[in-house]
Amino acid sequence: MTGIVVRHRPDVAAGQASALSALGVATVHEAQGRTGLLHPHIRPIQQNVAVAGAAVTVLAQPGDNWMLHVAVEQCREGDILVVACTTENLDGMFGDLLATSLMARGVRGLVIDAGVRDTAELRRMGFPVWSRAVNARGTVKATLGSVNVPVVIAGQVIRPGDAVVADDDGVVVVPHEDIDTTIDAGQKREANETSKRERLAAGELGLDIYDMRPKLEAMGLRYIDHLSEEKNS
Amino acid sequence: MTGIVVRHRPDVAAGQASALSALGVATVHEAQGRTGLLHPHIRPIQQNVAVAGAAVTVLAQPGDNWMLHVAVEQCREGDILVVACTTENLDGMFGDLLATSLMARGVRGLVIDAGVRDTAELRRMGFPVWSRAVNARGTVKATLGSVNVPVVIAGQVIRPGDAVVADDDGVVVVPHEDIDTTIDAGQKREANETSKRERLAAGELGLDIYDMRPKLEAMGLRYIDHLSEEKNS
Amino acid sequence: MTGIVVRHRPDVAAGQASALSALGVATVHEAQGRTGLLHPHIRPIQQNVAVAGAAVTVLAQPGDNWMLHVAVEQCREGDILVVACTTENLDGMFGDLLATSLMARGVRGLVIDAGVRDTAELRRMGFPVWSRAVNARGTVKATLGSVNVPVVIAGQVIRPGDAVVADDDGVVVVPHEDIDTTIDAGQKREANETSKRERLAAGELGLDIYDMRPKLEAMGLRYIDHLSEEKNS
Amino acid sequence: MTGIVVRHRPDVAAGQASALSALGVATVHEAQGRTGLLHPHIRPIQQNVAVAGAAVTVLAQPGDNWMLHVAVEQCREGDILVVACTTENLDGMFGDLLATSLMARGVRGLVIDAGVRDTAELRRMGFPVWSRAVNARGTVKATLGSVNVPVVIAGQVIRPGDAVVADDDGVVVVPHEDIDTTIDAGQKREANETSKRERLAAGELGLDIYDMRPKLEAMGLRYIDHLSEEKNS
Amino acid sequence: MTGIVVRHRPDVAAGQASALSALGVATVHEAQGRTGLLHPHIRPIQQNVAVAGAAVTVLAQPGDNWMLHVAVEQCREGDILVVACTTENLDGMFGDLLATSLMARGVRGLVIDAGVRDTAELRRMGFPVWSRAVNARGTVKATLGSVNVPVVIAGQVIRPGDAVVADDDGVVVVPHEDIDTTIDAGQKREANETSKRERLAAGELGLDIYDMRPKLEAMGLRYIDHLSEEKNS
Amino acid sequence: MTGIVVRHRPDVAAGQASALSALGVATVHEAQGRTGLLHPHIRPIQQNVAVAGAAVTVLAQPGDNWMLHVAVEQCREGDILVVACTTENLDGMFGDLLATSLMARGVRGLVIDAGVRDTAELRRMGFPVWSRAVNARGTVKATLGSVNVPVVIAGQVIRPGDAVVADDDGVVVVPHEDIDTTIDAGQKREANETSKRERLAAGELGLDIYDMRPKLEAMGLRYIDHLSEEKNS
Repeated sequence: MTGIVVRHRPDVAAGQASALSALGVATVHEAQGRTGLLHPHIRPIQQNVAVAGAAVTVLAQPGDNWMLHVAVEQCREGDILVVACTTENLDGMFGDLLATSLMARGVRGLVIDAGVRDTAELRRMGFPVWSRAVNARGTVKATLGSVNVPVVIAGQVIRPGDAVVADDDGVVVVPHEDIDTTIDAGQKREANETSKRERLAAGELGLDIYDMRPKLEAMGLRYIDHLSEEKNS
Repeated sequence: MTGIVVRHRPDVAAGQASALSALGVATVHEAQGRTGLLHPHIRPIQQNVAVAGAAVTVLAQPGDNWMLHVAVEQCREGDILVVACTTENLDGMFGDLLATSLMARGVRGLVIDAGVRDTAELRRMGFPVWSRAVNARGTVKATLGSVNVPVVIAGQVIRPGDAVVADDDGVVVVPHEDIDTTIDAGQKREANETSKRERLAAGELGLDIYDMRPKLEAMGLRYIDHLSEEKNS
Repeated sequence: MTGIVVRHRPDVAAGQASALSALGVATVHEAQGRTGLLHPHIRPIQQNVAVAGAAVTVLAQPGDNWMLHVAVEQCREGDILVVACTTENLDGMFGDLLATSLMARGVRGLVIDAGVRDTAELRRMGFPVWSRAVNARGTVKATLGSVNVPVVIAGQVIRPGDAVVADDDGVVVVPHEDIDTTIDAGQKREANETSKRERLAAGELGLDIYDMRPKLEAMGLRYIDHLSEEKNS
Repeated sequence: MTGIVVRHRPDVAAGQASALSALGVATVHEAQGRTGLLHPHIRPIQQNVAVAGAAVTVLAQPGDNWMLHVAVEQCREGDILVVACTTENLDGMFGDLLATSLMARGVRGLVIDAGVRDTAELRRMGFPVWSRAVNARGTVKATLGSVNVPVVIAGQVIRPGDAVVADDDGVVVVPHEDIDTTIDAGQKREANETSKRERLAAGELGLDIYDMRPKLEAMGLRYIDHLSEEKNS
Repeated sequence: MTGIVVRHRPDVAAGQASALSALGVATVHEAQGRTGLLHPHIRPIQQNVAVAGAAVTVLAQPGDNWMLHVAVEQCREGDILVVACTTENLDGMFGDLLATSLMARGVRGLVIDAGVRDTAELRRMGFPVWSRAVNARGTVKATLGSVNVPVVIAGQVIRPGDAVVADDDGVVVVPHEDIDTTIDAGQKREANETSKRERLAAGELGLDIYDMRPKLEAMGLRYIDHLSEEKNS
Repeated sequence: MTGIVVRHRPDVAAGQASALSALGVATVHEAQGRTGLLHPHIRPIQQNVAVAGAAVTVLAQPGDNWMLHVAVEQCREGDILVVACTTENLDGMFGDLLATSLMARGVRGLVIDAGVRDTAELRRMGFPVWSRAVNARGTVKATLGSVNVPVVIAGQVIRPGDAVVADDDGVVVVPHEDIDTTIDAGQKREANETSKRERLAAGELGLDIYDMRPKLEAMGLRYIDHLSEEKNS
């Protein structure tokens, strides 16, 4: 499936995207059953930014960013560009010119399993990026890859039109068909957490709130006063 | 020693803790003879924060944060929670709910040889964390570990009640019985450094202040004008 | 070539240095034909700082920072201290005292393939550092290395007097004899990018600006509406 | 999809398996368009062994090998057990007892993105293993995973019934529906390579056999006698 | 505790050592409650060798093997030399000359958290080594460390006189006071495994032998025929 | 300097090569003052092989092995092909066909800072390889690099015609102009080691042979009977 650009793919509604970014990566990951999280080697180059949007996917050769230029044309308002590589590569495939072009099209951010450069300028421009490395190493434009095919990136499958959520904690993908149920489950989880947070702030213990003591006792947890008791036993 | 919670352990006095955090990690490490420093893969998620306190230790299974909930109850004002893992693990064992609970008890920070999540919120809350990774990956609550037993974490042994000092440079442990002598040695070192700093700022050379020239010459250090002299010799 | 300090080496003019730091690492790297970039494991400890200057080089033993003290004396206004190690090492070879001494001599920054400490203080002092690690681990002063000999650091050869440019993207070296041609090429590249940036911001596509479409078509890039078309073909 | 065991999945015919293992990993990878190769951190614990078979997949928690015991029952003659983990883990999930059980069922080998132990015994038994690590670290049996669901392992998707090929070079997956076309393409490739090998052994150059010279010249490759010619130009 | 050589330390009896090496690393690790295992970055340079003996410990500076020469004199028949480093280091601290000297004293092997060289010769001599790296990089003799003090190595504390067991799976330490109980527990475990191995070889399933089915069912494990059943549910 | 093939370069005489390979990597590295050793991530795919020869160098793009085909033509009897990459890359750039071609020209081996494949076949053919990875991942032929220009590989500069020595311990480079003096120094070192080896085998201590005791005492090394003495002091 190399050398293909697929034009059509599902969209993520603006309301869905804002709901997902408000929930954040950790909650979305939990809400869909602890799946979808990209490996933590993908890190933000900025702090205090959360975005969500529809994935436009790129599969690139190592050291070759040609397909990123092809992908720009396929991007729409609210998308997130997702760049996987056929093999591990840290080269700086993306910089401020491509970011300018993506911002002109309303793209919300970049997730890339390779390097990026012009990072100070990207922060100034307000274009958020999650990458494997910061690296000024230049790339060639010599070999075809593909745009809008399913890719495996940082241990997850991302298909065009899946929702991608990214914040300070990393990046999570939500399969397109699971977006609404995930938002639902996430918002319930959050409501539940709010009351938990208040009780915890007031000094109640998770051991009691979650009723963990009986199970811990059944598993054999023992409380002793001094370690020497154990050693003498 | 799995499945044990030890209730009693030594405290670090408030004055000891503030003296240690004022000295900082590098000075404390030097003051106790260049020992106690955790491996630098343990990194802060925030900047410009220095804390010190008594270690409450946790030994956890990979991907399982149950014992952190157990440990909260053992924490007191001024403690630092220290979480080691039986095996290398990057999962997100800690987030804003546990932090809320620890803050309610007056805990000063977390040192964890695994991942943490909700990092933007943790920074907003002002709860400082030193961790091996930022990772939203959720964990289970299925297997016992222990609380307040000695642990090996990032290359160092930490026992409950040892003093832990953490700042932008990393984390150092001071054995409980060495706290006062370490503070003493650290404050002398710092006093000595202040005068050195002034002389260095005034342009004096370390070569002269530390009287290094004779020893360097004895070791055979040669000054030449051009590298070609060496090659022709 | 161990145990040698070379006194004479070329300078980088103030105008050359300011031109290079204004261009930035990514542009300088491209301008000299995509060479000279240090491996991205060398990372800044601060943000939004760009410097350039003449390299004063140090070759140090692992865990031994003696030669850094020797090197200070060889530094002049506008230099950048470059520290390579005979073998991989993360120890904290550099801290605020050495920085004080270097600032007193007008040195613009440090590039070190090892660890540094006192990082909060270094940021406060405004002394910029690019390093392999943040690490408080102390070092000894026991073994000779060399100062102002050519070193291999992070995959690049740096000779004394070469220009070193460092910013948020990393570090690049420019061989002394190529400084002017690199500045020239970089400034032309930047002028060219400015007009590109405007066209991209206005919504024009790189595909058209760089006239990529014919070559992509010749290479066989195919546009399809749905992935299923490909699978059925 | 946690906590599920799927009973039915496609088989790989004995003839298909032997054809694939005869081709070997590198040729199969090329034959299907350079796809399907697992990341090279998956390494054999033995030399000179090549196997192929139908994947029985396991998704396991870190530090927990319970699902491997569940998976054994789903294995048939000629299968290869494929174990992915929900998160990076090096624990020793597999040893000689599980291997004995798998050999009793005719399983041809194990591919695991975690650790294995009893490696000397596994080699003596002749049960081949490709793993991320050799590690005696024991695991618990506390948390459900799944058997025979699609998994992402070492950068590739493997579905139950896909063909897995493993030899000294690593591991490659062939989607079930592509097995026959891949064998075809691989055998053609090999036939072609045999004649190439003979010509190369006789001293002919790849430059001529593959007719590379015109394209290299068109790209601008220049032959010079001494490097100094280039520097003077 | 730098600059100290401790002369007296407990011995491991020849019978204890042979019992431990016969059990092997994985069984010993399990027999003492899944503790004591060194991180798997410590790897053997040979295959099919298992040894056990009393630890003689060394704490060395990075790039400095002076203390290994000091340690040789402290070694006795049946010992295993254990070398930790104050900081991560891959230098080749050990080669065939030191091995010759150790063999002359009856030392059974080396465990080192650094590099070794002359590996082909070490295999020819039959001196077994477990190390972090193979590396010919030479070291200096300039700085004191210590001999026969407790060290932290690859995540474990080893004290002089503790039993060290090493085979193809890695290295495990048994605290001196636990040697006999560990041998006991290990031999029982092995006896138990022998009968298990026979039943498994005969085709019985671990699911039945270990009576796992009821607990799996209670945890909610579901068997389905096709994955589509799950997706439709 | 991309896109250049340099035809002329110095040779290494057959006698020089056999002298160097007989000395081995560790001795050659020591003999030239502990320089020239490649980083230990470059590992042999075979055991018990030592070679030496003149370097033919290649600088390749990541994921692109075109220049290896160009380099074959520049190889002569007794050469060693040395492949560096413009950026970190693990792709399988080399396999049995290229090895067949190199063997036809009398090339003695390959040193490559990337991946290789067909490793079982390469061992069968007796063509020795030192590489960064074993990886079947295929490469393209799309971008020019250079042949016989100086390269930086695994932390060392190698120029065409330098002597490369490789064995089970790794790879070392000897600058062409230093070959004879290095052989001389290495042979003296080896003669010296032979007598040392005999004395060590007879039970003499390195402490005495090298007369280390006075210097250790001067440095402050203390011998104590029990660790408790130190703690009480």
